[in-house]
Amino acid sequence: VAAKGELSSRLSVMTFLNEVADDYPEAISLASGRPAPDFFDMDGWSGARALFDRYMQASSGASALTTARRIAQYGRTAGMINDLVAEQLRRDEGLPCDADRVVITNGCQEALALCLQALCSAPGDVLLVRNPTYIGATGAAEVAGIELLAVDERLESWTAAIETALHAASHRGRRIRAFYVIPQFDNPTGSVLTEEERVEILDVCARNRVVVLEDNPYGMFHFDGPTLRPMAALDDHGAVIYLATYSKTLCPAVRVGCAVLPKTLFGDGLAARVLATQLVQRKSLLTVNTSQFNQALVGGVILAEEGTLSRIVEAPRRHYARNRDTLVNALAAEFAGYEEFVAWNHPLGGFFLTLELPFSFGAPELVRCAADYGVAVLPMLFFSLDDSQRFRVRLAYSDATPAEITRAVAAFGRSVRDRMTELG
Amino acid sequence: VAAKGELSSRLSVMTFLNEVADDYPEAISLASGRPAPDFFDMDGWSGARALFDRYMQASSGASALTTARRIAQYGRTAGMINDLVAEQLRRDEGLPCDADRVVITNGCQEALALCLQALCSAPGDVLLVRNPTYIGATGAAEVAGIELLAVDERLESWTAAIETALHAASHRGRRIRAFYVIPQFDNPTGSVLTEEERVEILDVCARNRVVVLEDNPYGMFHFDGPTLRPMAALDDHGAVIYLATYSKTLCPAVRVGCAVLPKTLFGDGLAARVLATQLVQRKSLLTVNTSQFNQALVGGVILAEEGTLSRIVEAPRRHYARNRDTLVNALAAEFAGYEEFVAWNHPLGGFFLTLELPFSFGAPELVRCAADYGVAVLPMLFFSLDDSQRFRVRLAYSDATPAEITRAVAAFGRSVRDRMTELG
Repeated sequence: VAAKGELSSRLSVMTFLNEVADDYPEAISLASGRPAPDFFDMDGWSGARALFDRYMQASSGASALTTARRIAQYGRTAGMINDLVAEQLRRDEGLPCDADRVVITNGCQEALALCLQALCSAPGDVLLVRNPTYIGATGAAEVAGIELLAVDERLESWTAAIETALHAASHRGRRIRAFYVIPQFDNPTGSVLTEEERVEILDVCARNRVVVLEDNPYGMFHFDGPTLRPMAALDDHGAVIYLATYSKTLCPAVRVGCAVLPKTLFGDGLAARVLATQLVQRKSLLTVNTSQFNQALVGGVILAEEGTLSRIVEAPRRHYARNRDTLVNALAAEFAGYEEFVAWNHPLGGFFLTLELPFSFGAPELVRCAADYGVAVLPMLFFSLDDSQRFRVRLAYSDATPAEITRAVAAFGRSVRDRMTELG
Repeated sequence: VAAKGELSSRLSVMTFLNEVADDYPEAISLASGRPAPDFFDMDGWSGARALFDRYMQASSGASALTTARRIAQYGRTAGMINDLVAEQLRRDEGLPCDADRVVITNGCQEALALCLQALCSAPGDVLLVRNPTYIGATGAAEVAGIELLAVDERLESWTAAIETALHAASHRGRRIRAFYVIPQFDNPTGSVLTEEERVEILDVCARNRVVVLEDNPYGMFHFDGPTLRPMAALDDHGAVIYLATYSKTLCPAVRVGCAVLPKTLFGDGLAARVLATQLVQRKSLLTVNTSQFNQALVGGVILAEEGTLSRIVEAPRRHYARNRDTLVNALAAEFAGYEEFVAWNHPLGGFFLTLELPFSFGAPELVRCAADYGVAVLPMLFFSLDDSQRFRVRLAYSDATPAEITRAVAAFGRSVRDRMTELG
């Protein structure tokens, strides 16, 4: 399945969603995958910033005033808190990670956009994605004029799926340069790749010099099931660029994320350093450097927490886990007797659940749900490169109360039963 | 003069400059155009942030806690402080400006990159620039694969210069979509376009549907000479996108800038709104939204200053003006007797001065000046699309003390006289 990048396609989805939200402000939203704001500790985090200022004073020997002025000035394009971010990723994600392989960005979205542009810079360079996948990845590829190709996961193995895509691309004179994937608590599906799958993907990608762009925004929100290492921690090939963000663990307004480059690119240390330089140069022409005020805030929190965010994510993690429980229990109650028509997965972490319906659910059904039933959910079609996902919806349980989730599921259940009756 | 965009050319300049700065840390820098950090009022500005929080509470009716959480959350891609920014631009720059025509960005560089990508999105679309010009504009065009064309200012008029460029482009099957210009205290030259020149450029650009990208980072640092209105304030055609930044008036770490769209695009209101939507959609895929922490800080300062930054820029403006005086006086003393060989302009504001030498000054001369004379200045070649600027250098007087400027000019004068002797 090949989809030529058109600026309008994925972008119009976002405009449409905003319009629905404006038109039906009372609808309970299981559409938004925002973090729960109850856990934003603005005062505590602002307070921690002073720790970073003192840390920088101590390491540079400069006065408090000079340090404060340096933070307020232009700064290093690759970032100012790379050592602290590297430590946090080592501690919390088990990532082998040195400061000089970290590029700090304006949230993970900028890291993603920079990597796509640097990796797929020649005409005919293609980004491989899952289907469905995160709309920010396909959208960023589209605005950069990068062609997308979806891996066919119905094939017998990841090796077969990726190699089939490679052949299809090469047959059309294209080259797959990168594979974008969220192995842990995927957006939009909520699924997890097993360690065996991760290793298999790494092997086939490395063999074919396809960079794995591993995005891990939800990794710290693990509820149950085995603890799996990120692909970057399993990577012996130099195949993985790891993307991280503080939007979910702290809050979105910090707008701090990063890309972590491999030590070598498929065994070539120089190539990895060249790629790092390209990312930094591109960043300097896009946003100059990431706000040092925001970097100082994130750096201060990492210092205050002694290198790990595990304490900070504990309360929101419990909240998301309880919401997941509320959602799957409400679904089980609501769709009792409908098990052959309606199915869903059981997310082991993260913000999202996939629900399968016995009828197609697209933009008109979304509007009808919001208008007539007061509940908003997202068609998986919006995240998809073809119509294979037309029977699926994404339910986001991150930014709702348990009571809202229960009411939303009841309303959504009514809409599903009504629709089934209507369709006979 | 046409220059095909190559990623390496302008980017390698930046890498080179960083290396020189690392290799000769003791050299006095007249190279950096950074704002003077002595005037960064971090404590005052952080304090002003509370004003914005109260302003948002009052306008939404939400509680302090809810407001603080909304600010920390994801937000509107086009920005949160558009009304306050519009007011400040009306007051301080005389810009006719409504909130709904403002797109808040991660510093002006993101606004510039977004505008270039949206305006020059088709193959063959060309950006017209002055020669020399700001390296962030030519660099952003290059990474986006946009071809550059330099206007030839030696022709008899702006009309002739721009129409010659239009013909040259059209002859090669290209279309000039935008003209990037800093009319007020240009970077790198320090020059000012007269009101007559501004009106003439507007007329010829409007007639040919070329968007004027007016960048105005230094407008508030006006020392002497007539007060001129920005081109956006003179624009009757709907030809100007105005780019603004708070990096120089407040400080770079706020990373807040904006693009102000015209009410109509060449008389077409719908086209202007479509362009605004394109900028916002592209921004959402690049950086999602500008940090609301930083927006709240800028918004708070604008509220505290009752809509104008004139009080805040007063002290740095005096500092920059005194530095300009120190620089031109030192040059006059240093090059007394050399008037037929060395010349310079008298900037009426901003951060930069152009100096003309009797010999070519490029990267090797820069390194030699830094290594042997302890002073760093920038070859105008670095800002140029051809070698027409090889006898010129840019002297930046923004981020140095008067004593440093005097010592730097003495050292630079020695290097010039030595070089003249060497060349006979």
